[in-house]
Amino acid sequence: MRLAIALGQRGLGRVWPNPAVGCVVVQDGRIVGRGWTAPGGRPHAEPQALAQAGAAARGATVYVSLEPCAHHGKTPPCARALIDAGVARVVTALTDPDPRVAGGGHAMLRAAGISVTEGVMAQAARVANAGFLMRVEQGRPWLTLKLALTLDGRIATAQGESRWITGPQARRAVHAMRARHDAVLVGAGTARADDPDLRVRDLGTEWQPLRLVADPRLSLPSDSRLGRSAAAPPVWMLHGASAPLPARRAWGATGAGLIEVAASATGQLDPAAMLQALGARGLTRVLCEGGGLLAASLLRAGLVDELVVFSAGKVLGAEARPGIGPLELDRLADAPGFALTELRTVGPDVLQIWRRG
Amino acid sequence: MRLAIALGQRGLGRVWPNPAVGCVVVQDGRIVGRGWTAPGGRPHAEPQALAQAGAAARGATVYVSLEPCAHHGKTPPCARALIDAGVARVVTALTDPDPRVAGGGHAMLRAAGISVTEGVMAQAARVANAGFLMRVEQGRPWLTLKLALTLDGRIATAQGESRWITGPQARRAVHAMRARHDAVLVGAGTARADDPDLRVRDLGTEWQPLRLVADPRLSLPSDSRLGRSAAAPPVWMLHGASAPLPARRAWGATGAGLIEVAASATGQLDPAAMLQALGARGLTRVLCEGGGLLAASLLRAGLVDELVVFSAGKVLGAEARPGIGPLELDRLADAPGFALTELRTVGPDVLQIWRRG
Repeated sequence: MRLAIALGQRGLGRVWPNPAVGCVVVQDGRIVGRGWTAPGGRPHAEPQALAQAGAAARGATVYVSLEPCAHHGKTPPCARALIDAGVARVVTALTDPDPRVAGGGHAMLRAAGISVTEGVMAQAARVANAGFLMRVEQGRPWLTLKLALTLDGRIATAQGESRWITGPQARRAVHAMRARHDAVLVGAGTARADDPDLRVRDLGTEWQPLRLVADPRLSLPSDSRLGRSAAAPPVWMLHGASAPLPARRAWGATGAGLIEVAASATGQLDPAAMLQALGARGLTRVLCEGGGLLAASLLRAGLVDELVVFSAGKVLGAEARPGIGPLELDRLADAPGFALTELRTVGPDVLQIWRRG
Repeated sequence: MRLAIALGQRGLGRVWPNPAVGCVVVQDGRIVGRGWTAPGGRPHAEPQALAQAGAAARGATVYVSLEPCAHHGKTPPCARALIDAGVARVVTALTDPDPRVAGGGHAMLRAAGISVTEGVMAQAARVANAGFLMRVEQGRPWLTLKLALTLDGRIATAQGESRWITGPQARRAVHAMRARHDAVLVGAGTARADDPDLRVRDLGTEWQPLRLVADPRLSLPSDSRLGRSAAAPPVWMLHGASAPLPARRAWGATGAGLIEVAASATGQLDPAAMLQALGARGLTRVLCEGGGLLAASLLRAGLVDELVVFSAGKVLGAEARPGIGPLELDRLADAPGFALTELRTVGPDVLQIWRRG
């Protein structure tokens, strides 16, 4: 099961709105087939593992990190494929919360006389598929907030100089992190200041995450790097009702998607509405890379599931730009809290990963 | 030698202005004597190790983390004690830069026919005695700056609430850190806001570091906790020429030491002059615990040798109080830089130790 979960994670960032599932077929103590959800979400893990196993699947034990599907979607049901292959036993980690499955896969297998064991390594599988589960259960994607900070929590000098706080190894790790998310999100201020293209570079991967900008008034010029390259990989501009018509037209002409989201009286996008809009479009994992105001609005709304902090051995002082904007907290007890899940060095920098406490 | 250096470090914080030396006597491959500089700086490591070895010291090999002294100070020279004990060989890590020794100990041993090997594990010994070496070589103590920060670099809410950012394990680690320094230093703002007593608590140690306040105008009330307890362990108030006479009198009456230090036009103490004054009084290791303005003035002057950051899994946002005040930097390249030397968890928090890069 550990291997099935690990195989599944290879699909992270590439299979949305589907879960990233892994499958291992074992015959006589030997692995005869392995599979994971293919980029785009199809084919699923099980048919690939069964195809690899061929005739050896008959009488085999199959480990799957999520309940096999029972419904005809764009692929025939995996439970049917397992029955047709003649497997003897299926071990799963999780029941699929998708209402079209929700125990139907397990029932179908049992009805065919296959021995089914559920809930093996359920916790690890939940963590591995946290994005898929969050979308099904709460309608929004899992949100990772990434910050590259000095030791005193700054992302740039007072003048805005930010290249580079962290070293090349940390920046490369960020590209790998982008590749494991469905989309990369930045605020309008950061997009205007840095003119990023938000692509995954230098990892030998063709697959690119979506690129999202939270830009209430569509203030980012449509001839920015994101605007000029908006055809592919897709750029989605998240804006408010107050975005001027000429800007909407200009952005529409670039090929970018325009998604209108409720905004507050102060003109900021409602972060919960924004994530629901992304969940409705199938996104399961979003990586927010700042800036400080967007980070603060997500933190205030309690929507940051994972906080990734790269710390560089530098200090910039109190005039420099903070990585997290104002949170409007009155009491220390109200501060958003996180629990450490990973700690290591990345080149000369420190990587800390914290999850919602 | 590794053991000798480790033994020596037991004396850190208790032996100033002396070095914290360790000594191991080995006879026939067996350790027959161990010693380290006693609290207060005397007796030295070597006579204690020799006394433990007794007759077994004759013909033994002696490992010492610093060159044995050759001069009659408050104790007879250790080189003489080694000769009198009849040891065959002495292995040292460092030459003592103190001009009263400076190779004289090694020469005395060799003149007596003892085989001497120098420079073994010199780098580790330099690190272990960085405070003593800095005082002899630069006239100032080693400065450790400790910060307990949120992930976004804050030490308190905008309203000043700071209890507690980090957990009890981190706070206990700070007390252990205090015990390994000769003195603890805070700025006047922190002393007024927190009214700390800066003692080492709950570690079962009697020995206490000195307590220092950088307070240009002696603004801390003399009936503060530090003032009321100033008799012991000693409190030294570092102040400027502009400190009013009544405050000097009131502080003098508490039993605290008053040390006048040059101040800038803006009234801040000159950090280099302050550390020189402390070095002149024999201090080798000072732990600064903030606040943000004092930390910034030490960082601006390039006087922070070690930066200890405890990070808690909380965020407080941009209005909250920064751990490091303004540094007046124009360019990212001018940011003070540090290299990581230690990284681990302390309870729920993360401990990072960075040394001057």
